[in-house]
Formats: sequence, C-alpha cells, structure tokens
Amino acid sequence: MEPLIYVYREEDGRKFVESARDASIMALYFIGSTRTSTIPGVSVAGASPELTLYTPAVDVEYLVYGKPISTKYIPVTPEGIPTPALITRAALKIAEIPFLIVDAGSYIKPKIPHITLPSRIVGNRIDNGKALPYITAKNLYEEARTLARKISHIADIFVLGESIPGGTTTALGILVALGYNAWGMVSSAEPRNPHDLKRQIVESGLEKSRELPTNDPFRAVSCLGDPVHISIAGFLAGALEKGSKVILAGGTQMAAVLAIAKRNGLDLANKLIVGTTKWIIDDKSSGIVELVKMISPEVPIIAYNYDFSNSPYQGLRYYEQGYVKEGVGAGGTSIAATIIKGVPYTELWEAVHQEYKKLIEEGYSAIEKE
Amino acid sequence: MEPLIYVYREEDGRKFVESARDASIMALYFIGSTRTSTIPGVSVAGASPELTLYTPAVDVEYLVYGKPISTKYIPVTPEGIPTPALITRAALKIAEIPFLIVDAGSYIKPKIPHITLPSRIVGNRIDNGKALPYITAKNLYEEARTLARKISHIADIFVLGESIPGGTTTALGILVALGYNAWGMVSSAEPRNPHDLKRQIVESGLEKSRELPTNDPFRAVSCLGDPVHISIAGFLAGALEKGSKVILAGGTQMAAVLAIAKRNGLDLANKLIVGTTKWIIDDKSSGIVELVKMISPEVPIIAYNYDFSNSPYQGLRYYEQGYVKEGVGAGGTSIAATIIKGVPYTELWEAVHQEYKKLIEEGYSAIEKE
Repeated sequence: MEPLIYVYREEDGRKFVESARDASIMALYFIGSTRTSTIPGVSVAGASPELTLYTPAVDVEYLVYGKPISTKYIPVTPEGIPTPALITRAALKIAEIPFLIVDAGSYIKPKIPHITLPSRIVGNRIDNGKALPYITAKNLYEEARTLARKISHIADIFVLGESIPGGTTTALGILVALGYNAWGMVSSAEPRNPHDLKRQIVESGLEKSRELPTNDPFRAVSCLGDPVHISIAGFLAGALEKGSKVILAGGTQMAAVLAIAKRNGLDLANKLIVGTTKWIIDDKSSGIVELVKMISPEVPIIAYNYDFSNSPYQGLRYYEQGYVKEGVGAGGTSIAATIIKGVPYTELWEAVHQEYKKLIEEGYSAIEKE
Repeated sequence: MEPLIYVYREEDGRKFVESARDASIMALYFIGSTRTSTIPGVSVAGASPELTLYTPAVDVEYLVYGKPISTKYIPVTPEGIPTPALITRAALKIAEIPFLIVDAGSYIKPKIPHITLPSRIVGNRIDNGKALPYITAKNLYEEARTLARKISHIADIFVLGESIPGGTTTALGILVALGYNAWGMVSSAEPRNPHDLKRQIVESGLEKSRELPTNDPFRAVSCLGDPVHISIAGFLAGALEKGSKVILAGGTQMAAVLAIAKRNGLDLANKLIVGTTKWIIDDKSSGIVELVKMISPEVPIIAYNYDFSNSPYQGLRYYEQGYVKEGVGAGGTSIAATIIKGVPYTELWEAVHQEYKKLIEEGYSAIEKE
C-alpha cells in the first residue's frame, strides 16, 4: 500500500519528499493548555472537560515512557478512544527519530525531561477575548524562535507537532481574528463537529475584543489564541531562518500556524509541508485544503494513509468513524518515518498495534481490557 | 599554533579526534546550584557568595542571548574576572554548534528556553551530609538518561558541560564518599586553591553521614554531592547506550562524573574524552591526570591551549594567572569547534576577544568599562 497521499501541490510535495531522503531529522511536540477546552462540548481530547487540561502532559509522558505518569490512564475521548500519541510513539520508535517536548503552557508540568519556554502560560477561555497577555504572545514566539536558532544546525528537517485540547477552537479564533473567513473549516476530534459552539465562542470573544480583526498576529493570539500555535510559529520562523525545513505535523490547527507565519512575513515556499492523516483529509466537516489555499497556497499537504478498519481493536476502528483524526503530530511523524527512514506501511501499522496492545496489557487503556 | 594538547592517553585521544571529523555534534550545558557555594571562601564563581546562586542561570542566559537577563552584569569573580561562558559562546557561534541548556536545579530559573529535569533541586550544603534526597539523585540520573536516549540519534557526539558554583567542592565530596583518596586534587577558580576549607566541609559532611564511604553513587551524591554531576552522569549513560560519543567538557569536576559512571558499571573505553583547558592542566594545585588515572584510566584527556597572556583585556589576562581556569564547558567546546569544524586557533582566540569586547561595549562587564 502506498502510504503517502499527495493531497495538495503534489509536485512540490514530491520534491520535498525527495529532498528529505537521508536527511537528519528531529521532532518537537509543543504542549499547552487553554481553558477553552473546559467549556462543555468543545473538546473530546480527554474523558471529561476538566481532564482535557491533563491531556497534553500525559500525551508526552506516554511518548517518552510508553505509559502515563501523572494519571492512571492514557488520554482518551469520553468513549475511551485512545490518544493519537500512540501512532506518534510507534513512528518515533520504529524510525528512531530523536525528539523533544516543548512546554508552552501545560496545565500540569509533564513528569519527563522537557523544554520549558520561560513565558509558558495556560491560555484563558477565548470567549472572553483575553486569551493571554500581548507581551506573552510575543515572548513565546521569540523564545521558540530563539530555541530553533540555537538548535537548528542539528537537523535538516524538524517535525513540529502539538497537543492542546480545544486547539481547533483557538485555531479558528486566531484565523478569524486575523480576518480569515474560516468559519466551519476547522476540524474536530469527534465525528459531529461542534461548529455552532465553536462559532459562538469565537464570536463572543470577537465582540469583547475591540481591536479585532487585526493584521498583528500577536494581537490575534492575545485575544483569541493560545500558547501553542504562536510558539510553533516562532520555532518555524527560527528554523526557516537557519535553512532547516519543517513538517508541520497536524490537521487544521496548522492553518493557524501558517497564518501567524504569513502575517509575520515569512517566506514559506519550498521549505515546509503540512503533514497530516487521511482522516483529516476525508473529513467532510472541515477543510484543510481550503484553509491552506486561503492562507498559504504555496504549502503542500501530504497525508498518511492509515486504514484501521480491519484493526482487531475497537479503539482503533473508531478512528475510521471520524473520532480523534489527528493530534500529537501523528500524521506528520508517520510521514517522516516513511520518507526519511523508509519504514513500510505494514510495519508502521503493526507497530501502532503493538503499542496499543502493550497499553491494553498493562492496563493503561480505558476502553479495552486484556 | 597547535591548539590541542594531548594530555593523557595521546594515542586514544588522537583516535577519538580522527573519528570525530565531520561528526554531527550537539552540546548540552547542565546547570544547578548547591548551597555549598554560599559558604564564604568556597567559590569565586560570583561577585559574592550569595551571587554564586545566580551564576548558572546567568551563564546560560549569556550563552543564548549574548547578555545577562536576570542580573545586570555577566557572572564575574569578586575581582571582576569574566565567566568562561564567553569562551564557550565564542566557540559555539564560530563553529555553529547546536546546543541546549539542561536545568538540574538552578537557584533561579534561566530566562531562556531550557530543558527541565522534573526532579530538579537546589542542593543543600554538603557539610551537613545531606545534599539531596536519595530518590532525587536516582531520579535525576534516570531523567537525564532518558533525555539522552530520546535525542541520542541526533548527534554522533555530545559535548557535556556544567555551571555549578561550588562544584569542585561537591565533586571532592562525591569522590571521597565513593572511597577515592582525592584530597587536594580538585581544582579551583582562584589561584590559591582553598583545599583546607574544602577538606573541612567534606570531612564535616562525612562525619554526619554514617553510610559513607559507599559503592552506591546515588548514596554518595545524596550525602555529599549536588544535582549537576549526577545528571551529567545519567546523560552520559544514555548517550553511550545508544552509541553516541561524548566529550566531558570540564575540569576536575568531570572526575566525579567518571566516578559515578564507573560505579554504575559503564564501559568507558574508546567512547569519550575529557576535554578541558590548558589552565586546568597547568594548575599545580590540582591533579586532573591523577584523578582520571585513579578513576578511569581508559579515558583520554585533551586540553585546549589558549594563551591570553598577550590579551589587550585585563579580565582575560587574569586567566593566565590561574583565575577561573574552566567552566561552562569552555575547554571541551573549544576542542569540539577545532576537531569537528576545523576552526583555527587564531580565529577562536579572536572570536573570544570579540565576544568580550561586545560585553564591555554594552556595559555588561563589571571589571572593564569602555
């Protein structure tokens, strides 16, 4: 099975893939929280709205140790469907991809070695229009940019992923605050995308922010954003300045990163791709291609073509019904494992299943018991 | 001028250098504090005993930004002699070496992006024999080891440096606690090495620790150590496990790291060197070669042959009088710049001077004004 789907700008996407063979690579996963995720109905990236605050830290604890440290179970949806971090972990392990965690403002600090951005902050609910201080948005960007500049020579390509429950809602907020007509275009971790709720939240925030819409990405983030997208954009800026390439590993949220980058004047041609999953591409309730076309038409999109419909595990079959879809850089990391280390589809599929099997056997899965 | 001095095990040292050409490299600087440095007379790595607690954070702020953030001046001795971090920064910049900071327990958090070890802790005065909890020593080791295992594939060689005022005293504590007769062998940042005071402190701690001497390195660190050496040893363990090589960038303190590594059963042959400065080698008040011979005779020592005697700056000429000598990986980072990127001696000498000139011009030097 051909694991890669060239979704948008196929020719440029293939050029990127060609240039990436045997490249040195490093992955970074940015974590942070926004209290927006605690608004009932916004996020299923956690068993309950309150638990979504723990998801970023536990996602990356699992990435590093193969088990949750700060909670009993790995992050799951209310239905018990497991975090996409298990896909990411499988890809990292099989392809031996070095990686680091960057904390931009996780509600709890992960109990693993991780990079701290000094201005780390938990974002406020964006329906109040005051997500985080303007200076903090600026500082997070600059700190992540500095980080990239100091380590960029170590890797030809950086994979940048995220874990921030409520992140599609804040991504919508950032896009709308920057004047993009992105209504109804961001994805969701559940099959029934709560577009109305997201619109209500963003509109409420808009009403309370007299300075919007704006061309200033720091203003947009300060009003309707979160700590994670601005930090990823900052790292992107620093990495591109130093000549590294980037895989933005995520779904529609990465449109917010692209928008921040564009408004900061970054030249994005031939330097990065959006790397995501088939489930994001197939999602009729969102439009990643439309978003990228609108914001940065020069950026290719590539998706990893997982098919879990024949999985022996219910938790993974759920993915084929539109649950979860993407997160913690699952798609982009799988793409990196493919193009840089040549990991075949069947091996990666099997590795994901082994990871899940291990979780179940060790009692860390909430939905499936041994 | 030949910049490298093969101090010990020349043949193995040359083999290491040969194998390192064109290697991928990353540097990590471990910072942490021990309240031992606040005992008057122990440390001159700060303008006053209390200020030594700020030195690690400000050293690495300077590494990243080229200026201090948390204090007005860069760290200096009471005489105003500048931190060796300026040598490190010059070498990092000229050779474009990617680097990260690891906080094992700095008294203040550095205002730069940095890796946090979850068990980070400020060490207590070791004259009480209770430097840090046993479990914390173990956790720091394991956390740093995990960090190394997750990023090791990014680099063929890791340069590991330190900034911990009072570090030669805690290094002596660790060595003595492990049963080594290391009295009078550790170095000092001042020409008159306060061996008597160090002995008093360590003996006081020894008397209060009934479990010493011990073969257990975690016990030794827990009683008479600090958060930094155990963390560097943990990283060393993880890096060697994964096949990376290491330059232990420091002076006699690195003997404590070697001792911890040996007691944990690590095989150190043909995998690492101690990289230091000429000033450590020339120091008649300490014995790095004797220490290495006693602890790990298989490990070569290489020194960088700086000569600042004709420097136009008083602060740098002081180095030739036995002040400072080493720190923040100054020697090892200079060696890395030489063997991996081929930076000539004159260029590095000039780069150090440019760095210092900039500091003076911008008013961050306490001793020299423009």
